[in-house]
This record gives sequence, C-alpha cells and structure tokens, in this order.
Amino acid sequence: MSARRVRVAFAMKPDTRARVFGPEQVARFEEVADVRGFLTEYESDAARRVLSGVEVLVTGWGAPFVDGAVLDAAPHLRAILHSAGTVKPYLADDVLERGVRVSSAAGANAVPVAEYTAAMIVLANKKLLPIAARYKTLRQEFDVEQAFPGLGNFGKRVGIVGASKIGRKVVELLRAYALEVVVYDPFLSAADAAALGVEAVGLDELLATSDVVSLHAPSLPATRNLVDARGIGLMRVGATLVNTARGEIVDQDALTRRVVAGELFAILDVTTPWVLDTDHPLYSHDHALLTPHVAGSLGVELGRLADVVLDELRLLVDGRPLEHEIAADVMAITA
Amino acid sequence: MSARRVRVAFAMKPDTRARVFGPEQVARFEEVADVRGFLTEYESDAARRVLSGVEVLVTGWGAPFVDGAVLDAAPHLRAILHSAGTVKPYLADDVLERGVRVSSAAGANAVPVAEYTAAMIVLANKKLLPIAARYKTLRQEFDVEQAFPGLGNFGKRVGIVGASKIGRKVVELLRAYALEVVVYDPFLSAADAAALGVEAVGLDELLATSDVVSLHAPSLPATRNLVDARGIGLMRVGATLVNTARGEIVDQDALTRRVVAGELFAILDVTTPWVLDTDHPLYSHDHALLTPHVAGSLGVELGRLADVVLDELRLLVDGRPLEHEIAADVMAITA
Ligand SMILES: NC(=O)c1ccc[n+]([C@@H]2O[C@H](COP(=O)([O-])OP(=O)(O)OC[C@H]3O[C@@H](n4cnc5c(N)ncnc54)[C@H](O)[C@@H]3O)[C@@H](O)[C@H]2O)c1
Ligand SMILES: NC(=O)c1ccc[n+]([C@@H]2O[C@H](COP(=O)([O-])OP(=O)(O)OC[C@H]3O[C@@H](n4cnc5c(N)ncnc54)[C@H](O)[C@@H]3O)[C@@H](O)[C@H]2O)c1
Repeated sequence: MSARRVRVAFAMKPDTRARVFGPEQVARFEEVADVRGFLTEYESDAARRVLSGVEVLVTGWGAPFVDGAVLDAAPHLRAILHSAGTVKPYLADDVLERGVRVSSAAGANAVPVAEYTAAMIVLANKKLLPIAARYKTLRQEFDVEQAFPGLGNFGKRVGIVGASKIGRKVVELLRAYALEVVVYDPFLSAADAAALGVEAVGLDELLATSDVVSLHAPSLPATRNLVDARGIGLMRVGATLVNTARGEIVDQDALTRRVVAGELFAILDVTTPWVLDTDHPLYSHDHALLTPHVAGSLGVELGRLADVVLDELRLLVDGRPLEHEIAADVMAITA
Repeated sequence: MSARRVRVAFAMKPDTRARVFGPEQVARFEEVADVRGFLTEYESDAARRVLSGVEVLVTGWGAPFVDGAVLDAAPHLRAILHSAGTVKPYLADDVLERGVRVSSAAGANAVPVAEYTAAMIVLANKKLLPIAARYKTLRQEFDVEQAFPGLGNFGKRVGIVGASKIGRKVVELLRAYALEVVVYDPFLSAADAAALGVEAVGLDELLATSDVVSLHAPSLPATRNLVDARGIGLMRVGATLVNTARGEIVDQDALTRRVVAGELFAILDVTTPWVLDTDHPLYSHDHALLTPHVAGSLGVELGRLADVVLDELRLLVDGRPLEHEIAADVMAITA
C-alpha cells in the first residue's frame, strides 16, 4: 500500500453504508484510496485514531455531525464527500471557512427525484391516476373527457418553483414534450432562464396560470409556507400540485381543502408531518396520490451515488476541480 | 371561392368531428380548402352529392366504411386523410390499388401513447404505484426497499415489443434515462436497431431479461397471443408488463395469475374484453393499474391530430410528399 494513496474513512449509519457502499463498491474505492475505517461516531478512541490520519471523509445519510472538535481531531482532512443529497445538517457552519472542501451527491440524488417529477407531471396533465381510481370504482366505461375537462399533455403549462438541481433536471426532461415551462426562483437571472429555455415568472403568476405546479425549493426559513393559503387559492380549478421538496413549503391544510372540494389534484412525496395521521383525507381521495418520501435514490439508484463519490474522489486525487463542490455562497441558499 | 381550392369533406361520427374539428379548426381548413360538407354516412343522396365532388376526405374515429361503391361515387377522390390512429378498419383492401392515397395521424396519435408508456415505465421500475397503494393501506412508514427489492431506475432493462411508431417514440423518450432498451420486432433490421440506438433481441430473451416489458405490436392474426402463457412464464419475478397496444396480444389469464401470485406487476390501458368483468382480480390488486383505453389522444391532445391533418392537406395542395402517407407494403404490417 503506497503512502501516496489518499487516506479515506467512511462515516454514516451502518445500514446506509451497507446499502450504498457494498463490498464491490468499497473494493473500487480501494483501487484509488487507502480505506482506513468505517465510522459511525467521532468520539471513541478508535474513531479518533482513524480521524487523526484521514484526508477524506465519505459521509452519507445518518452521518455523525462534523463540528470544530472533529476538525481539530482530523488535522489532515481536506475534503468531505457526501454520498447523499442535503449535506448541511451534518456540518457545522465553519467547516468551509476552515478550509475543508465539501462536495455532495445531491446532483446525482436529484436524478430520480426529477424522473419521479417528470413522470408524475405527464400523468397529472392526462389525469391518468384519477382516471384509474375512478375506473377501479366504476368498473365500466365512462366519459373521461367529461369527468376531467381539458385533460392531456398538448400545450399545457408547467410551473417549476425553484430552479434547483432537481428543478433544472425536470425542465430538461420536459423538453421532449409539447409543454410550456415557466419557472419561479428569486435567484434565477433572466439570462439563466433563457439558457434553461424557460420563462421566469413571479410566483403568483406561476400559481395562477400553471396546469401543474411542481415544488423544488429548499426548506429554509424564507420558504416556509412559500405557497400559502392565498397562493393555493390562486391555482386553477383542475390543476395539480406536485411536491417532492418539503411539506413545510406549502400550506397543506389549504391544499387539502381544495383537493377535497374536487378543485385541485395533489401528488405528494413529502407532507407535514411526513407520515400523515391515519384519518387524513388525502390518503383516500381519488384526486391525491401520496408516496412516503421515496422520490430520492433508493434500491439500485444508490449505485449512482457511490459512482459519483468515487468519480469525485478520483478528481481530488488527480488535483482536478471537483464536479459537485459546494461554494460558501451557494451553501446558504441550497437545500 | 376560387375553383383552385381543394374540395374537402369531413366524414366521421358527429361527436368525433365536434371534438377534433371545432369551429376554429374548420376555419383554418377553410383557409386552404373548400369544405363541402360533414358526412356521417356515404349512402344518402345528400352524401352522394358531396362525394361526387370531393378530392379529399378527412376521416376519423367512427368514420363510415370506404368500399368500392364509395370510390365509384367519388370519382375525383385523391386522398383520405385520417385524423386518428389506425385507419385500416375504415378502408376496403383495394383503396390504395385504386389510386387513392391514404395518410393517417397515427404518428401524432402515437405521441400521447408514448408519453403514457415512458412515464409508466419510470414509475414501474421505481414501483411507485404499488408503493403508493401500500402506503394508502398501511398509513405508516414501511421499508420500501424490503417490500420491493431492487427498485429504481438506474441500469434497468426495458424491453419494447414492436418497433412501431409508438415503440420508437418510447425509445426516444427513454434516451434521457440510465436505462438499457432492447427491442423485439421481426421486421426490424440490425441496421434499423443500430440507428435507433437499441439492441434487437428475440422475444424470449426480451421477456426473460427485461425489468419492464412494453407492448407496441399491432393486433394481427400473427400477433394474437404473441406473449402467451409460456412467454409470461419467462418474465422475471418483480417485472412489470405495460400494455397500451391490444389485449389480444397477451395471454391475460396467465398474466393475471402471476400478478395475483405477487410475482409480476401490470399496467394495462387495454384488456380483453376492453372493460373487464366487475369481479376481475386485476381491478383491486396493488400490483396492477388499469386505465380504460385512454393512452391515445384525448382532450387537448385532439388538437394535435387536427394540426397534423391540416399540415398534410397543405402538403397535398402544394404537391409535396405527404409526411404520413401509408404505402401498400406497410399497410399489411401496420396497426
Ligand atoms: N423527495 C425526496 O426524496 C427528495 C430528495 C432530494 C431533495 N429533495 C428536496 O428537493 C428540493 C430541491 O432540492 P435540490 O437539491 O434540487 O435544491 P438545490 O439546493 O439544488 O436548489 C435550491 C434552489 O432553490 C432556490 N431558492 C432559494 N430560495 C428560494 C425561494 N425563496 N423560492 C424559490 N426558490 C428558492 C435556489 O435559488 C436554488 O435554485 C429540496 O427541498 C430538497 O430537500 C427531496
Ligand atoms: N392505447 C391506445 O389508446 C392506443 C392508441 C394508438 C395505438 N394503439 C395500439 O398501439 C400499438 C402500436 O401502434 P403503432 O401505430 O405504433 O403501430 P405501427 O403500425 O406504427 O407499427 C406496428 C409495428 O409492429 C411490428 N410488428 C408487426 N408484426 C409484429 C410481430 N409479429 N411482433 C412484433 N412486432 C410486429 C411492425 O414491424 C411495426 O413496427 C397497436 O396495437 C395499436 O393498436 C393503442
């Protein structure tokens, strides 16, 4: 084992490690790195010994928190490569200031969320899930065009709230469809919007004119209740809200009332609380589909996260720019 | 009204005409054509008078049948432009031989079917609808990866049966995903497959190795029971069959047995008979989703059909090649 090989430790919940970095994946890391250990905490003597040598921490879901004391214990630490989406909850605010580079697999984790979203938008415009629910109940032919006026995916308008990693990938996937896409994001410049091939609009206009509204803003104090009761009230009768972001971003009670009234449709991968009370009306309404926070990487999709972290590690070893490094100014407005 | 304008009649069921060719659409036809009438049959004296002058018939769902007697009554007829998918049921075999050109909007009607299919394939690999169904029942957190081993859309194999207009569009839509696509079509040459960017495989191999099998073959004597009980038996545990083609192509009882056994998943826009008996087990099983033959153009999507026929009429008027003309040799193996 040459001294030139970068010294790496994995740090996350054991089951996350087993799911994302199986023996095959770890073997691929060992081709470029000296894997020093698999940590679940940074306090024990054993953990401290590993930390004292590592240059790179590969973190993931359920990773222990990195604070100043951890950085003190890891004087050679150059980079934290996060194998999942949001890395912020695992890091003290001053990690970047102290010169440790941070990269995350949020870009790779964005892929299945965008795929979920684009597929649900196509189904939503065609009202396919409410049609299937109605057909399951009726078990006979019925006039779908009368039941769901204006259904279909030709010339409809889709509103994307948040030109995020996920939001941008949704825009890309929807390019193949005859849909008009508008985006609201307070940090999206007109030039960015043009490059994306979309029109930037205000949030009220987006809500009032879109056939499907899809949420991709991060959960921040500023985005709490971003789509409030008034915003929900602006949405067109027959429109669908897709939320794969965070439940807190939308006034769920206002949304529920309009769904129950038959005016709106909802496809929600996230809710507040994230498992709704068993008697919540959205579980059983034909206009709603709930999934239990599964749009992100699961199953075979975890392999993509491991691949991305390994690619990032190779770039680091070669002294080349990381592809998914998070700059300090971006950290503030990121999910 | 100049004598140079092409003489057109519409011939289809009145409600089809109203849905596809509203006043706005007819007005656009009148910019290039002399619209002589709206027929629902070809027998009455009034219909015969219209037929005696027309050069172009615009047909659609529920059009009256064109046989030799109709052609005799329409000596100036140059073309039949069909504003829906399959045109064959509306035409006697010798229409092409008698020099009348036939074009159909099947290519435009293929778009929503391909969109339905691609969206359902993405959901199927992730098991999103069975997850939603399970969540609706349990109303609590559960281990989705244990319930549906290997779920996700990374590196999965999709098998397309029939490199049809719809099948090809599905292949195009799936290019944006990290999926491997294989195709079975006895009329697909190796060069065609390479141009499509897919691997051509035998039907048995396709069935035995695909995570999702999607049917796009036409209903012909040769395709009846194309995926028979033996073929269904080849499919992998956990795989999904998507059928937007025709129920007769698959052994539905064999499929149902494996779905009910929890081994396979099914997403069916078409069944045999097309509305299943009310006690059919596929209605209520969490591994199945039934939609009532709605993948084709409906609602706003009908506008695309009208647009395509108008474009075709303009090409005809200009003496340029039609974009969707059906040649005699293609007619035999087409849907
Ligand atoms: N359902 C899941 O499984 C899953 C998985 C991953 C991420 N997510 C969630 O998806 C969302 C998007 O994640 P991402 O990684 O694409 O985000 P990101 O960090 O890439 O982007 C955040 C975007 O939000 C924009 N933004 C900031 N403040 C805003 C505001 N007030 N209004 C509108 N936009 C604002 C920023 O400009 C930025 O473009 C987040 O809420 C994240 O938590 C969910
Ligand atoms: N669900 C709906 O609403 C809807 C709408 C339109 C079409 N459809 C159905 O979708 C299917 C595809 O339609 P299309 O217009 O794309 O078809 P198409 O006419 O464009 O193509 C038919 C294809 O099937 C191939 N083929 C012929 N014999 C075959 C065989 N034995 N095995 C496999 N492939 C064979 C041909 O080579 C050709 O590529 C048809 O069954 C059609 O009826 C359904």
